[in-house]
Amino acid sequence: MGEEVKLIATHQSFPCARIEWALRIKGVEYEYLKEDLTNKSPLLLQSNPVHKKVPVFLHNDKAIAESLVILEYIDETWKNNPLLPLDPYQRAHARFWARFIDEKCLYGVWGAAVAEGEEKEKAVEGALESLKFLEKEIEGKKYFGGEKIGYLDIAAGWLSHWLSVLEEVGEMELLNAERFPSLHQWTQNFIQTSPIKDCIPSRQSVIEYFSFGINYTRSLASNKSS
Amino acid sequence: MGEEVKLIATHQSFPCARIEWALRIKGVEYEYLKEDLTNKSPLLLQSNPVHKKVPVFLHNDKAIAESLVILEYIDETWKNNPLLPLDPYQRAHARFWARFIDEKCLYGVWGAAVAEGEEKEKAVEGALESLKFLEKEIEGKKYFGGEKIGYLDIAAGWLSHWLSVLEEVGEMELLNAERFPSLHQWTQNFIQTSPIKDCIPSRQSVIEYFSFGINYTRSLASNKSS
Repeated sequence: MGEEVKLIATHQSFPCARIEWALRIKGVEYEYLKEDLTNKSPLLLQSNPVHKKVPVFLHNDKAIAESLVILEYIDETWKNNPLLPLDPYQRAHARFWARFIDEKCLYGVWGAAVAEGEEKEKAVEGALESLKFLEKEIEGKKYFGGEKIGYLDIAAGWLSHWLSVLEEVGEMELLNAERFPSLHQWTQNFIQTSPIKDCIPSRQSVIEYFSFGINYTRSLASNKSS
Repeated sequence: MGEEVKLIATHQSFPCARIEWALRIKGVEYEYLKEDLTNKSPLLLQSNPVHKKVPVFLHNDKAIAESLVILEYIDETWKNNPLLPLDPYQRAHARFWARFIDEKCLYGVWGAAVAEGEEKEKAVEGALESLKFLEKEIEGKKYFGGEKIGYLDIAAGWLSHWLSVLEEVGEMELLNAERFPSLHQWTQNFIQTSPIKDCIPSRQSVIEYFSFGINYTRSLASNKSS
């Protein structure tokens, strides 16, 4: 078909990994355009002028941004190995939890990693509250998608590798086997499955990436309050 | 079919209006379950235990929360008068901008309404920056959906009525015809169309609703910083 499929991305970013996982599950070949976030390319700025962020998905020169939006596009364009369930209610269910993961879990975990002093304990508690909902959701299932990895597993994928880095860099403990046995088991199931395991950045690179991000966020907050 | 379609909602809330507009565009009859947010019903708490918020959509006793998720469910369940475009790229485009409207415009406008003192000017500027992107997006079109009201118009619908209340209560001016001629024209086009115009809460009720919300947010912020 002479199709062009390109991904503007960085390896350490889990929203970018979401897109790679989806393309590999679909068996879609793609060109990886590695982005240097300290010196953003004209292609990135032109393809995502609103957010200026990776990932950006380029399909025959149409540009799409926002990882969950890209996942839906990929699922609608290549219909083999569906990521979302086919039933409308199950689809709504998956979309609801994907939003929850981005808006509550990620936001909560990031806030807890950044927090210092007396705010830390409260922030960690808030993050744990959100993870409790996910524990309940995954109980009794191998994957969020059932027997196969689907859209919601991909959305939750950062809990399998990136979260433990955030715990280390943010000096906190959240997701362990005692506290969240089912969710912890899911992180193991997920990360040991192909093609997920073929597409995971080195721990060291994620440590550097998040350390930079956390220090940056802290410096913004301290500038604001000073 | 003996179908049950119910909506747990409050009239002043625009995420609830989104669902009413969509159902009316589709011609789906529904039972309106008016929720008292100062004394939440067992049905609400049981149907949306995660967020405990309206709207909740009940279809044959399956519960769905989050207005944009509900809109997709409605569009997939009743296929007449499609809300989202049919082309995958156009769908991605609409979803991208709906997220932008919730995450950037709404967040920015709300923050500007709440802000006081020297933070106000900066917050208003940020909100205007976001609205500029929308102005560019609607330029030359009657509706975001083209000739007919669609998903993105419904997502943006609060700019047509609720925004002017936020401007009044938040003592700021954002969306006027000089600054944003196309977006301003769209707010007029949108709100004068059936079934949108049949389903708009009274201005006074929205003033009370937002005044309460803004004072509440301010009191939380002042407790946090004190």
